[in-house]
Amino acid sequence: MKRIDLNCDLGESYGRFKVGNDEAIMPYITSCNIACGFHGGDPVTIVKTIDLAASHGVQIGAHPSFPDLQGFGRREMVMSNEELSACVKYQVMALKGLTEAVGQKLRHVKPHGALYNAAAKDLAIAKTLISTVFSLDPELVFVGPAMNAMRGFARDLGQKYASEVFADRRYNDNLTLVSRALPEAMITDEEEAERQVLQMALDQKVTTVTGVEKDITAETICLHGDQPNAVNFARRIRTALIEQGLTIKAHADD
Amino acid sequence: MKRIDLNCDLGESYGRFKVGNDEAIMPYITSCNIACGFHGGDPVTIVKTIDLAASHGVQIGAHPSFPDLQGFGRREMVMSNEELSACVKYQVMALKGLTEAVGQKLRHVKPHGALYNAAAKDLAIAKTLISTVFSLDPELVFVGPAMNAMRGFARDLGQKYASEVFADRRYNDNLTLVSRALPEAMITDEEEAERQVLQMALDQKVTTVTGVEKDITAETICLHGDQPNAVNFARRIRTALIEQGLTIKAHADD
Amino acid sequence: MKRIDLNCDLGESYGRFKVGNDEAIMPYITSCNIACGFHGGDPVTIVKTIDLAASHGVQIGAHPSFPDLQGFGRREMVMSNEELSACVKYQVMALKGLTEAVGQKLRHVKPHGALYNAAAKDLAIAKTLISTVFSLDPELVFVGPAMNAMRGFARDLGQKYASEVFADRRYNDNLTLVSRALPEAMITDEEEAERQVLQMALDQKVTTVTGVEKDITAETICLHGDQPNAVNFARRIRTALIEQGLTIKAHADD
Amino acid sequence: MKRIDLNCDLGESYGRFKVGNDEAIMPYITSCNIACGFHGGDPVTIVKTIDLAASHGVQIGAHPSFPDLQGFGRREMVMSNEELSACVKYQVMALKGLTEAVGQKLRHVKPHGALYNAAAKDLAIAKTLISTVFSLDPELVFVGPAMNAMRGFARDLGQKYASEVFADRRYNDNLTLVSRALPEAMITDEEEAERQVLQMALDQKVTTVTGVEKDITAETICLHGDQPNAVNFARRIRTALIEQGLTIKAHADD
Repeated sequence: MKRIDLNCDLGESYGRFKVGNDEAIMPYITSCNIACGFHGGDPVTIVKTIDLAASHGVQIGAHPSFPDLQGFGRREMVMSNEELSACVKYQVMALKGLTEAVGQKLRHVKPHGALYNAAAKDLAIAKTLISTVFSLDPELVFVGPAMNAMRGFARDLGQKYASEVFADRRYNDNLTLVSRALPEAMITDEEEAERQVLQMALDQKVTTVTGVEKDITAETICLHGDQPNAVNFARRIRTALIEQGLTIKAHADD
Repeated sequence: MKRIDLNCDLGESYGRFKVGNDEAIMPYITSCNIACGFHGGDPVTIVKTIDLAASHGVQIGAHPSFPDLQGFGRREMVMSNEELSACVKYQVMALKGLTEAVGQKLRHVKPHGALYNAAAKDLAIAKTLISTVFSLDPELVFVGPAMNAMRGFARDLGQKYASEVFADRRYNDNLTLVSRALPEAMITDEEEAERQVLQMALDQKVTTVTGVEKDITAETICLHGDQPNAVNFARRIRTALIEQGLTIKAHADD
Repeated sequence: MKRIDLNCDLGESYGRFKVGNDEAIMPYITSCNIACGFHGGDPVTIVKTIDLAASHGVQIGAHPSFPDLQGFGRREMVMSNEELSACVKYQVMALKGLTEAVGQKLRHVKPHGALYNAAAKDLAIAKTLISTVFSLDPELVFVGPAMNAMRGFARDLGQKYASEVFADRRYNDNLTLVSRALPEAMITDEEEAERQVLQMALDQKVTTVTGVEKDITAETICLHGDQPNAVNFARRIRTALIEQGLTIKAHADD
Repeated sequence: MKRIDLNCDLGESYGRFKVGNDEAIMPYITSCNIACGFHGGDPVTIVKTIDLAASHGVQIGAHPSFPDLQGFGRREMVMSNEELSACVKYQVMALKGLTEAVGQKLRHVKPHGALYNAAAKDLAIAKTLISTVFSLDPELVFVGPAMNAMRGFARDLGQKYASEVFADRRYNDNLTLVSRALPEAMITDEEEAERQVLQMALDQKVTTVTGVEKDITAETICLHGDQPNAVNFARRIRTALIEQGLTIKAHADD
């Protein structure tokens, strides 16, 4: 039976600075990536978000970032391997500990923003991230871009990897994302986004920006939680997937 | 057989900002309180300090603080119970996770600086701290001031408590520390400090600033690691205690 | 001719973390207090807010805070006079320099959140703040609570002081604000808030929480920019004041 | 008459985290670059360092950085032009305001660490920095590497530029610095460093790492303040330069 995971980045508020609408989106997703304090996520927010995820039965993951609150983790930083590794360890273990303290289990790690992008384009960075996560807990699933060399590295190491695809981003022919600097980067029409999601989830294919259909491994779909229509779009996608007979299930679930 | 623990605050460097001399003092102590990132302790430093403690067989504890890097955690902050509790949880669980990731065990928690002092003078704050630590792991030992009401609260809850005394601070008749605002607060003469340590460790008594001898529960002695003569003083105290027949042993050890 | 100033705290966003609706409220106010980076206000936000205020002819002031981004400056911190003074100097001079770099003038300083409240209840803190601001530029107006001893201190020093009143807070008989811990602290009914504003601005009187009418010096009215109906309320208050014949004018204007 | 400036990065301590030995090195230098709070330099430290420089008649400059306290500004960050420009404006204007508040004048700006290196290798970044500084105050001298294209850009704009050379670094044939990743990057022998300083200051030449003598514009020599023998080395260099008949004078002085 075909299955897919719906994930969302949550817990990114910081004190009085509010981001997203975590409570409203929770019912529509199966896994969440919780900010760890380095780009968002103060301790109160993290603790509350873990509780919220647990109460909805949503799978909990850590969402580590470059240490850059001012830039919300969206600015690449050049760090040594030692720094990067320690930075990821600290964030993942804080989340893991807080999750276990309420009787839940941390199941996955997805790098945030510029760290995700840096790993996607530089395998050396990806290797540092994946090896670090594996050293902390070999059961953790690493969530990264579909069709990227890092999947192979993870699999060779014995690390589970969930291939992530995006509902609202267009793909190049080489299955990288079209750069946000280009006007065609984003899919703003919800109907088109829905079609892309169904194509990826049902057929494991995507039509690229040049109109070519390509194979793509789609195991988890990223939904954005901080956009005006985010909740409605999440509900719509979830409904459409279920109507097509897919099982919506967290990627780490058996 | 009489025993005592020697503890020191470590891992307080932050990136290029170096504090203390952790490697040199490690051989003389039996437990260490490792900064968790909120007053000092960047991820690289924390990871290295855990490894260093493990390699010396020194017992590892967390040293959570108010979130105040600029003030090194030495400025009291008025936080809600919810904020304070989440803040402590985050820091303790980051340390616990990083410690367990290298096969070690987090054994105790000692609040840092202004947080320690706030808990010492305000039982409501102490209760928040102790309940929070207990909820995370009932096996953790809470390290706090000797002769303070918080010991009773911890014991009633079922939380182990280690009574801490200071080698280089003078005590009031009510067994609080003489305020640092007063000239007689510190014992600067090493011989006098050694006498006070021996009196506390051997006889469980201290001579207060007015010259009266009082009972004091001394289970762990705090050594300061960032003073010019810190290492020599640690060696001297350790040697003197051993010569008097005391066993130097971490407080959480059986 | 009677006059009043309408002020609002602006520029409090931090990177991707958005607070308030600065553009929408600007047309209705005559002075603004711009965050300086310590509780909100990253450099891009500050630069943009200064430009926005200048383009609306709104008087520019600095809004320094305790250094506490995580707590949005709403948690009291115990700092030494030297720390507090340097902290305020740094923030005010950053704002002053950025304001002058675009040909504008910094005209006032209003402490933020917990720093404002700390000064209101502890004259020693108020004296440190006021002396510090005066030493930086004796032309700066200090904005603080109405009917507080700090006004006298400022005036004796030769520092201009603007007495601030609140549209949506109730007053005790001694003209302090009713504590937010009490249910009657806030005026949630807009009509009642409007009546209080008109009473304060026109008659320099306020009816306290016990129903007694008291004299109050009202030179500037604080409008909150981050509440759902903030813009409508600002427009309403401004219109009502003008209809009553008051001149809406920045407090530092001649 | 030949002249040279001796500069040092100062004010880089952060609260209890102490860096360098500012008081001891002050007598030997003619200009200093004061940290602005983003890689080091808390408000108390900055205020004290400005006073210290003023009392020694040392020329005061701002030393802005990427916003990265954890990395001490030594990690490159990818920022937009708008972010970078606002970041530099904020830091420079804070320093300028604090300097003018004590009756002194801010005379120059030198980027710190990774920001300096990024500008040295990427002219687009250099242009953003230089244009930003010029927009704030066209009298400010921009301090950057000798023999770099950014000097031409600054001069075309009308911005003064001081060419900086290093006492303890070896130069490639193209007059960039030998990478720190290579063993021959640093000159560790003080005698050799002294010879290089004299050659650069007297003859405006340097012998590169391959043994070739090249022309170099040397207007200011960077001395490092945080190394064990920093003060002795500063004294030695200063003495040697004076003995050779050079005038030691701040670069912005007429």
